[in-house]
Amino acid sequence: MSRLSLSDTDKQARDWFASTTESLGCTVTVDSMGNQFAIRPGLKDGAPTVAGSHLDTQPTGGRYDGILGVTAGIEMLRTLHENDIITTFPVGVVNWTNEEGARFPISMVSSGVWAGEIALNHAHDLKEVGSGTATMKSELQRIGYLGEVPCSHEAIPLAAHFELHIEQGPILEAEARKIGIVQGVQAYKWFTVSVRGADCHTGTTSFSHRADALLAASKMIIYSHRAAARKGALASTGILTLKPGSTNTVPGTVDFSLDIRSPENDIVAQVEQDCRTAFASIAAGHNIDDLNKDFIPSSKSCTVDWKQDTYSPATKFAPECISCVEEAAVSIFGDKTDALTKPMTSGAGHDSVYTSKRVPTTMIFVPSRDGVSHNPVEFTKPEDCALGAQVLMQSVLRYDRRRAEGKV
Amino acid sequence: MSRLSLSDTDKQARDWFASTTESLGCTVTVDSMGNQFAIRPGLKDGAPTVAGSHLDTQPTGGRYDGILGVTAGIEMLRTLHENDIITTFPVGVVNWTNEEGARFPISMVSSGVWAGEIALNHAHDLKEVGSGTATMKSELQRIGYLGEVPCSHEAIPLAAHFELHIEQGPILEAEARKIGIVQGVQAYKWFTVSVRGADCHTGTTSFSHRADALLAASKMIIYSHRAAARKGALASTGILTLKPGSTNTVPGTVDFSLDIRSPENDIVAQVEQDCRTAFASIAAGHNIDDLNKDFIPSSKSCTVDWKQDTYSPATKFAPECISCVEEAAVSIFGDKTDALTKPMTSGAGHDSVYTSKRVPTTMIFVPSRDGVSHNPVEFTKPEDCALGAQVLMQSVLRYDRRRAEGKV
Repeated sequence: MSRLSLSDTDKQARDWFASTTESLGCTVTVDSMGNQFAIRPGLKDGAPTVAGSHLDTQPTGGRYDGILGVTAGIEMLRTLHENDIITTFPVGVVNWTNEEGARFPISMVSSGVWAGEIALNHAHDLKEVGSGTATMKSELQRIGYLGEVPCSHEAIPLAAHFELHIEQGPILEAEARKIGIVQGVQAYKWFTVSVRGADCHTGTTSFSHRADALLAASKMIIYSHRAAARKGALASTGILTLKPGSTNTVPGTVDFSLDIRSPENDIVAQVEQDCRTAFASIAAGHNIDDLNKDFIPSSKSCTVDWKQDTYSPATKFAPECISCVEEAAVSIFGDKTDALTKPMTSGAGHDSVYTSKRVPTTMIFVPSRDGVSHNPVEFTKPEDCALGAQVLMQSVLRYDRRRAEGKV
Repeated sequence: MSRLSLSDTDKQARDWFASTTESLGCTVTVDSMGNQFAIRPGLKDGAPTVAGSHLDTQPTGGRYDGILGVTAGIEMLRTLHENDIITTFPVGVVNWTNEEGARFPISMVSSGVWAGEIALNHAHDLKEVGSGTATMKSELQRIGYLGEVPCSHEAIPLAAHFELHIEQGPILEAEARKIGIVQGVQAYKWFTVSVRGADCHTGTTSFSHRADALLAASKMIIYSHRAAARKGALASTGILTLKPGSTNTVPGTVDFSLDIRSPENDIVAQVEQDCRTAFASIAAGHNIDDLNKDFIPSSKSCTVDWKQDTYSPATKFAPECISCVEEAAVSIFGDKTDALTKPMTSGAGHDSVYTSKRVPTTMIFVPSRDGVSHNPVEFTKPEDCALGAQVLMQSVLRYDRRRAEGKV
């Protein structure tokens, strides 16, 4: 499905969110980034404990990524409403704007503004990708979702943030587990690595006279994989371009992306440093890690340069939130909890990364079929969605009770 | 420089070729592949003895590759014209279309059609590489070079074909020689290798759940280099494309070119077979040649498919043409001929490979600085170009005289 942020279909989803949550006894506040906060009163005043996620999707996205976290939050509100349950403090559901970064090219931009990590004007001025000229602000105005309340954690305080989300990876399914108890979000750094050699003719240039940028890049890609594997980290190349691009010309120019991830900032830094050292040696023609096995030495060498594109340090979620999820899981799974749940680190970024900078936060994962996401075939079984929604509601209610007991 | 075949700049060069040779007393025929035959009459009718090469270049090519052979041929025409020399039979110059195969991905395609080795329709239907939709035929029509004369050795017979070309390798320069007397051309095969894995999120997919097509392709590229080095052959990858092409998505689709060369057909076949076996194992995830050192085994694997794009067996040139070149060299170098010339095998394919299938053919090499070609820094000294042009003209005139004497 396709529901790009602040499109006409996103407006329809937002209208539905507002009318549905209002019918369940909530007051809906819209802030200056279009974030929607549906809050249900408690016995006492105070910042609400919320379930939050997003309703926007990738251009060819799935029906679960983000959407499950919001709809499960609404299901929580319905359960409270239909059973006349009054929490001690307010609870609610948040729909964060443009989490995907697919239409306006900063992901999690509106939780980032709320957390004070991204400037409002910068976010408002973001232009839509492609050939259009709309900005976030112009589209917020156009669809009637430019709220008057400032988008900030001070103007709209929250007590805690719980986010139910599909795993977007294969681990829970592969291990036949139902709930991922998320401990944090891994750190990642993105680089563009540029290798420069010399174009030459494939037929007339012996191996001993080549500076083959693609051969060097191939060794670097394999090395980065080994370096990450040795540290329990991830390293991946998703983009590779070369020039000039002809079957009978050895490429003198290769640029490739390098994405390094680990739950620990230090590990990302170590893998980066390992690769920086090794890539320089590989470019110079040295036999790093026996990758040059059976190679003929060349009198020519390549150079390599790195450009850092993004750095997102590791996020550690709040122990007091994680323990609520753990208790919720035990209440549902009993003595099968260890078999059916797993402490996990999120590989991808989410709005919870930003909320965790201001309020206690954690996430709950449910299985993704084949680990597929950002794709229309994305799928999570209805019974797994239901389990996730149960854990979400219980976690929110447990957190509210702990606040009532003065424990958090 | 960049003069891709059938581009606007190629049209300019073609227009210049036609007007220049016409001003030197030639009649220019354009065939259905856009090949230009500039023919100067002789005393008698008959098939012309020609100097032939090409005016198109690689995307970032040099100013000598192909171009020297055509411009030296025009210089021969100018010398004959200005000195009122009448040959016994016609002589001429040929500009072959798309020799490089850089824009339309079969090299020497138009001499191949002329020789009856490539079907006209297949050549006409070749699509330009990259994202464009133009075909050879549509571009021939667009620039006005779709000739009405059939492209064939029967419709446009030649008596012999001499091609002056830069060496594109380092040997003549390294040995301080001036003329390479080319005996033949090494064998080569071109393939497109397609690796298919599965797109997945770089942050959420562990190494043990990936089918990373780029990682597999990197191993294949390194393996092909090793396999060729072990046999004294060459293997090179000049094109690599991947999908979907996003920093945080592991590519599920990679296609790359593989160019295998050796003076011996058997060696090319052996390297190909070695790579076919190894690539299949690499795709399946096996640890071929210890390339998987420190890898984490994956439960998923890739597939690999090969498409053969070109096969050019080893070519042996005509002794009666080679002896004309030898005699031309002696007439210029005298008793220094042995020191300043060298019998050589061409590492690259040339239009002469195809002409040699139908008419006596040979080639003349001149030195390339640093052996560099397919690069803007490609350079041959003016005096070396002049020596090559002298040998070319003398070879053509000697061949014409031998025909007049009934010796060939």
